Amino acid sequence: MKIDIFSLFPDVFTPYLNISILKRAIQNGLLEVNTYNIRDWATDKHHTTDDTPYGGGGGMVMKPEPIFAAVEAILGAPPVCPVVLLCPQGRVFNQALARELAGHDHIALIAGRYEAFDERIREHLATDVISIGDYVLTGGELPALVILDAIARLQPGVLGDDEATSDDSFAEHGLLEYPQYTKPSVFRGWEVPEVLGNGHLAKQNEWKHEQSLLRTLKWRPDLLEKVNLTDKDRAFLEAHGLNSAAAEENNTI
Amino acid sequence: MKIDIFSLFPDVFTPYLNISILKRAIQNGLLEVNTYNIRDWATDKHHTTDDTPYGGGGGMVMKPEPIFAAVEAILGAPPVCPVVLLCPQGRVFNQALARELAGHDHIALIAGRYEAFDERIREHLATDVISIGDYVLTGGELPALVILDAIARLQPGVLGDDEATSDDSFAEHGLLEYPQYTKPSVFRGWEVPEVLGNGHLAKQNEWKHEQSLLRTLKWRPDLLEKVNLTDKDRAFLEAHGLNSAAAEENNTI
Repeated sequence: MKIDIFSLFPDVFTPYLNISILKRAIQNGLLEVNTYNIRDWATDKHHTTDDTPYGGGGGMVMKPEPIFAAVEAILGAPPVCPVVLLCPQGRVFNQALARELAGHDHIALIAGRYEAFDERIREHLATDVISIGDYVLTGGELPALVILDAIARLQPGVLGDDEATSDDSFAEHGLLEYPQYTKPSVFRGWEVPEVLGNGHLAKQNEWKHEQSLLRTLKWRPDLLEKVNLTDKDRAFLEAHGLNSAAAEENNTI
Repeated sequence: MKIDIFSLFPDVFTPYLNISILKRAIQNGLLEVNTYNIRDWATDKHHTTDDTPYGGGGGMVMKPEPIFAAVEAILGAPPVCPVVLLCPQGRVFNQALARELAGHDHIALIAGRYEAFDERIREHLATDVISIGDYVLTGGELPALVILDAIARLQPGVLGDDEATSDDSFAEHGLLEYPQYTKPSVFRGWEVPEVLGNGHLAKQNEWKHEQSLLRTLKWRPDLLEKVNLTDKDRAFLEAHGLNSAAAEENNTI
């Protein structure tokens, strides 16, 4: 998969691409990441990429010309691949959206700075607008890295056997993950739950599933609305405080 | 504000701290960021920080000893400040949570790798567990940077006059931001909306507010449930397709 990133701070991306799973994916030819500096396509002598907003208000707005020029110079006009604008006014990124983006051979990510993008960039250049969450950041660089990381992990061959995502939260069943423990079996007097040490695989799997249900009920009950619960799951959750109205609602989904 | 970050890849943080608003905040003494390598507190000869999970399953689990040792060496036992674990099984980060964290003088962020943290880290060391969204990432480094960026911006004096956050999405009113435009007034035949060029401040403000309402209705109707809408807002939204059931629900919040 090829990912082209357009930003004013391309150097920010380098160290994250040089470690761990992403480094190995790039070395193995499973992932190609190119970063481009939007400022290189600003044509005035000060290489201006922002200007004041029409209609007033605080902050500066990213000008359309350098971004159109940068993206079209690299990807043609119209661009040969999806062009994703990172912006708080977008679809909220989640694992389903990661899987959707990971299905493309090639995507482009545009990371802005300043208060906003000129609206014509969204309307006439971007094919998608994505937000990584409901918070205000200084720029789109971290959102671009988040999306890059999440979709690179989904490429076949990128993760080793030890790094399989099948158990990861959200990845499969939509529940939070159960508690994990490693050695030592007793640390400062705090013990690993007995069931995990006793070798009864079926009991361990039941415990893990129940713990996933309990944690999701306790910390993220909103997720339960999107999960296909079995009758047994529902009975278990009701016994642990899920109210029947919510259970009925789940039943209809 | 002081932020201590514990991670296996402290070098990843450096370039983001060396640009733009964060660089200036650190230079001006408004923000102090220290990064620590958890591996420096692993005491065996291979500096092991992970091990296999009890009860089987894919992936490795971060061991408790090096993380307790690192955090307690820097912050005492118990730690002198809130200790936030970055983890998909946590409170979902948003602007309200950013404001809550920004109110502390000092916080610590623990960024993990591998499949999970040993549960005893969450139970007995962390004071908070935060997720930046419902997606699977390779580690907690990007979430730590996201939180750092979002809360640094909220420190008094960090943003200049041109960078004020008052208009930013979510920052104040909980609606998506209206479309922004800058020069040129016509780009490839696409014009800036006339109202933004005509100097009628009241009309411009009305247009901006209506555009915020419209975009939120279109792209993030879930946000409308948390907003204090006026009667006029509600009438405007209903005229543009907000169904009356949803409007009533808003009315009761």
